[in-house]
This record gives sequence, structure tokens and C-alpha cells, in this order.
Amino acid sequence: MDQVWSDHKEFLSEAEIQIQKGLHSKVALVNKVTHHILNSGGKRIRPLLLIISAHLCNYLDKERIYLAGGVVEFIHTATLLHDDVIDNAEIRRGIAPARILWGNQASILVGDYLYTLALSHAVQMDNFEINDLLATTCLRMAEGETLQLSHNGDLNLTEATYLEIIEYKTAMLISASCRLGAIIAKAPEAKKDALSRFGKNIGIAFQVADDTLDYVADGDRLGKSLGEDLKEGKITLPLLHLLHHCKKEDRRWLNAVMDAERFEQDDLKKVIALMQSHGSIDYAVKKAQGYTEDAKAALAVFPDSPQRRSLMTIADYVVQRDY
Amino acid sequence: MDQVWSDHKEFLSEAEIQIQKGLHSKVALVNKVTHHILNSGGKRIRPLLLIISAHLCNYLDKERIYLAGGVVEFIHTATLLHDDVIDNAEIRRGIAPARILWGNQASILVGDYLYTLALSHAVQMDNFEINDLLATTCLRMAEGETLQLSHNGDLNLTEATYLEIIEYKTAMLISASCRLGAIIAKAPEAKKDALSRFGKNIGIAFQVADDTLDYVADGDRLGKSLGEDLKEGKITLPLLHLLHHCKKEDRRWLNAVMDAERFEQDDLKKVIALMQSHGSIDYAVKKAQGYTEDAKAALAVFPDSPQRRSLMTIADYVVQRDY
Repeated sequence: MDQVWSDHKEFLSEAEIQIQKGLHSKVALVNKVTHHILNSGGKRIRPLLLIISAHLCNYLDKERIYLAGGVVEFIHTATLLHDDVIDNAEIRRGIAPARILWGNQASILVGDYLYTLALSHAVQMDNFEINDLLATTCLRMAEGETLQLSHNGDLNLTEATYLEIIEYKTAMLISASCRLGAIIAKAPEAKKDALSRFGKNIGIAFQVADDTLDYVADGDRLGKSLGEDLKEGKITLPLLHLLHHCKKEDRRWLNAVMDAERFEQDDLKKVIALMQSHGSIDYAVKKAQGYTEDAKAALAVFPDSPQRRSLMTIADYVVQRDY
Repeated sequence: MDQVWSDHKEFLSEAEIQIQKGLHSKVALVNKVTHHILNSGGKRIRPLLLIISAHLCNYLDKERIYLAGGVVEFIHTATLLHDDVIDNAEIRRGIAPARILWGNQASILVGDYLYTLALSHAVQMDNFEINDLLATTCLRMAEGETLQLSHNGDLNLTEATYLEIIEYKTAMLISASCRLGAIIAKAPEAKKDALSRFGKNIGIAFQVADDTLDYVADGDRLGKSLGEDLKEGKITLPLLHLLHHCKKEDRRWLNAVMDAERFEQDDLKKVIALMQSHGSIDYAVKKAQGYTEDAKAALAVFPDSPQRRSLMTIADYVVQRDY
């Protein structure tokens, strides 16, 4: 993966210049919050996917790629600001999130600002296909987050609905980032669709892996504490598997743990032990790998090339980190 | 004003159908919140202004007017959902706001949904000028709200900054609603600019009047309690005037009142009495009327017509309600 980053270093720094250039509100508080969130360790994976996708389709227009890279990163960042408020997050990537530093109100408003900044940059590209894709993507993301909220603490959540939630809230924007590269390169529909499918599948794989990490990762390395999803009543794939396979009394206990006001470290340890004994972690990891394979299969329409290999590497990377 | 509403009844009901048709998410919670907020007594003043502006410019395209009417109402409604969270609102137009019924989280996310729904409808109009205007408007609105937040409780706020805040947070969308009517009617620049100016000035007049009502209106009739702005540390024109004209000891007392955790009904009565003795309410009312006059003057480019008279009536209406 390090090779992929370094192969695209130049393009990423151009996209980075575009991102920083876009941030200059006349309102000081807007600038403080946007600079904090945009310079707090985000990897720019969405701009990277957009750049590689454009290259894979013999990209035509550098300027538009940088501009579009900024747009997808702004959208992603807007959702982070709102998500942290929704989740009462105390930490993000190892540091205090904007809501701790400037409050929930500023995080909500500057999230709105970044959403509309993204769409105002997109409008400047004056291309119906791009604007339509981005507007639909943002709409689905908000629906996905709301669907997740409405199933908070719902022990009867199905795997199908869980997958729908993560497709909407996470995979749509990753998919759109890949498709945007193809649109800007004026690629034929088949290539656009292939890159959409690739992005959607790595997006789902990424979110399943991320949800699994919440039960197995080293809290310090991940930059956040373990068991956060459980604490918030967010039911993700490992827990879903456990709920469907554990004994009735364990299910009742899990129910009580999720209902409880406070949450003990020992409870988390017991949940993880139950997951291990029922193979729930393995199940989720394999599921993520399955989506990775589907993502790679979508690239079959492209002949072998350094860009295609980069995408293959990214597909593996999103599920292999930090276990 | 009743005459204006009834003159445009047919067009408004078409716009209403468009608004309701636009609301059909597959996520039940999204539908609950959008239906609640969109059917809780909003007057549709922005779609009305858009319709009249389009008529005034010899409108060409009915469908686009209805579509655009929905867009501006969705944007307005999105901001209401977020504003209620920001302000910890307990009541809106006499009923419980979405944040009380479904929580802050749902209000934030469905606000995001309505913002992006608006922009996705706007994208369907496939017109750069429309999308550019709406994106810029949303950006300024978020900046205005953030600027207001960053001056919360700031007794050194200047009148110029207060006016900038309300221009951004309120007047921009009203101005855009008027301009959109002219854009859809393919009116010449001079008419677009005149309607922008008209909308901007009635928007500022409306907000100054609304801020003043917070100190003088009958709480029941307005559908919210009095003194809310003071309670939240929001410094508006009557208070600004008072702060600049009262005795030092009164200023110190006002400072203490705004810093206090709790807020007594007697404090509000004293603030209002001070405002009356210093002419602060009169000052704000006259200021609002000044903007109304500027709004009317902007319509000089149009010959007399029923539509022009309707706009004149609306200009008077926004500052004459409920005193």
C-alpha cells in the first residue's frame, strides 16, 4: 500500500493544494473548524481512488480531477463532523474532535458549510452527470445514517438491513469517488459501472472491517477506544452474528448490557469472548473479504496496468489493516 | 396580505403538490421527520415570492417554478431542523419541534437529507445559474449561522456584524427565491438584480422585525415564548441599541443576566422596560421599515402590475405582523 501512496504522491499533493485552497471563509470559526478536521490525519483515500480511477480510464482533465478530489473529501469531512455529534464522539484519530474543541453547534453548522462547499465546487464543474451523482450520493448517505439511527439498539436488525445501512452511509461515496474518475475521463458506461461496483464493494468491505475492528483492534493504534459501537447501541456484523448464534440467556444478557446506562470494561471482554467462541469475528472478516473479491472481479473489464494493480492493492488494504 | 395569498392559491397548491411529492424516502424515520416539519404551519412565503417574481417577469415555465418552489422550501426547512438543535428549541410555531419528538440526532440527519434533497432537485433543472445561486446561498447561510454562534453572548457585537449575520442567515435565501423566479422567467439581468435586492431587503426587514418580536410579541400568538434570544445569548438589534445607550450599571447588569445559568421572568420584564425607556424597540422597528422602503424602491424597474403590488404588500407584511 505504501507503494500506491508514493506512486500517486504528486497527484495527491495537487489535490491537497486544491483542498486547502478551497478553505477560506470570512468567518473565523468556520476556518478554525474546517482546518482542524481537514488536517487531523485523514488519509485522502477517496481523492486517491478518484485519481487512480481517472488514470485507469486514460484521464483527460487534470484540473477537474483535483477539483473533484476536493469535492469528495469535503463531503466525507462534512459527514465526520455530523457523525461525531450523533455519536457523542470523545476522540477521532487519536485527537479531540471538533465537537469537543468548539462544541456540537459549531460542528453541525460547519458540517453544513462543508456539504455546501462541496456542492458549490461541484456546480462549478457544470456537468449534469457529476452533480446528479453527487446529489444522489449525499441523499443516500443521509438516509443511511438515519436508517442506522432508527435501528439503534434494535436486536432484531437483519443482516440485509445492516448491509443496506453501510452501503448507503459508507460505500456510496467511495463508489462515487471511483465513478467520478471515470466520468471525468469520459470513459464508456461499462467502465463507469465497473468502477462504481469496485468502489461499492470495497466500501462495504471497509465498513465491515471497521465495524469488526471495534471488537478486536488495539485501541491506541486505531486512535479510538474499543467497544464504542456496543456502547452506543450500534449493532454491527460481529454482534449480529453473535445475536443469531448465541444461547437465549446470552442474548438476554446482551440486551441488558445494551440497555444499561453504564458500560463496564468486563462486559466488553465477555462480549468479545462470546464472539470468539461463536466465530463471529471470523464470520465478519470473511464477509469483508468476500466483498473485496467482488470488488476485484469488477475490474475484469480493464486490462492489467499499474493503475489496476493499485486498485487491487487498495481492495486488500481496506480489510487487512490493524488485525 | 390575505388577498395576496388568495390570488396565488392555485399556484401555491401546485407548488405544495410538488413539495409533498418530493418526500418519499424508503427510510421511515426520514419520512416521519420531513412530514412533521413540512406540515407544521410553514406559510410557504419563499415559494410565494418565487411564484410572484416569476409572474412579474412574464414567467415561461410552470413546471420549473413548482420545482424551484419545492427546492427553496426544502432548504428553508433543513435550516429549521438544524436551528432548533442549535438553539435547544422547545417549541416551534406552537408545537413540539422534531428534536423533541425524535431527538437531536434525527433532526441533524434529516436536516442533511432535506438540504441534499433540495440540491438534488435543483440539479434536475440542469441550469448552471440556478445551481450556482443555490449553492452559494446555502454556503452563506451556514456562514451566517456560524458567525452568529461565534458572537453568542458577545456584548461588543457591532450593528454592522449583526446585519451581516442576518443578511447571510435569513435574507440570502429570500433574495435567492425572488431571483430564481426571474431566472426561470429568463428575465434580463437588471430585473434579476432588482428582485435580488428586493428579496435581500425584505429578508433583513423580516429578521429585524422577528428579532424585535422576541421582546414585544404576545408569546401565545407567536407560537413561542418571549425572550428566547436573550436566554440563548443571541444579541439582536433591540438589545444592541440598548447596550449602546443604557447606563454603565445597566450594561453590567445585562452582562450578568446573560451570563447567568438561570433566567427569571422579572429579568425579561426589566430588559423590556429598559428597551422601552431608551427607544430601542422603536429604533429596531424603524430600521426594519427602512429596509422595507429600500425593498420597495428596488421594484422601480417594473411598471405597475398586480404582481408588483403583491410584492409591495408582502414588503409591508413582513414588518407589520403581530406588534
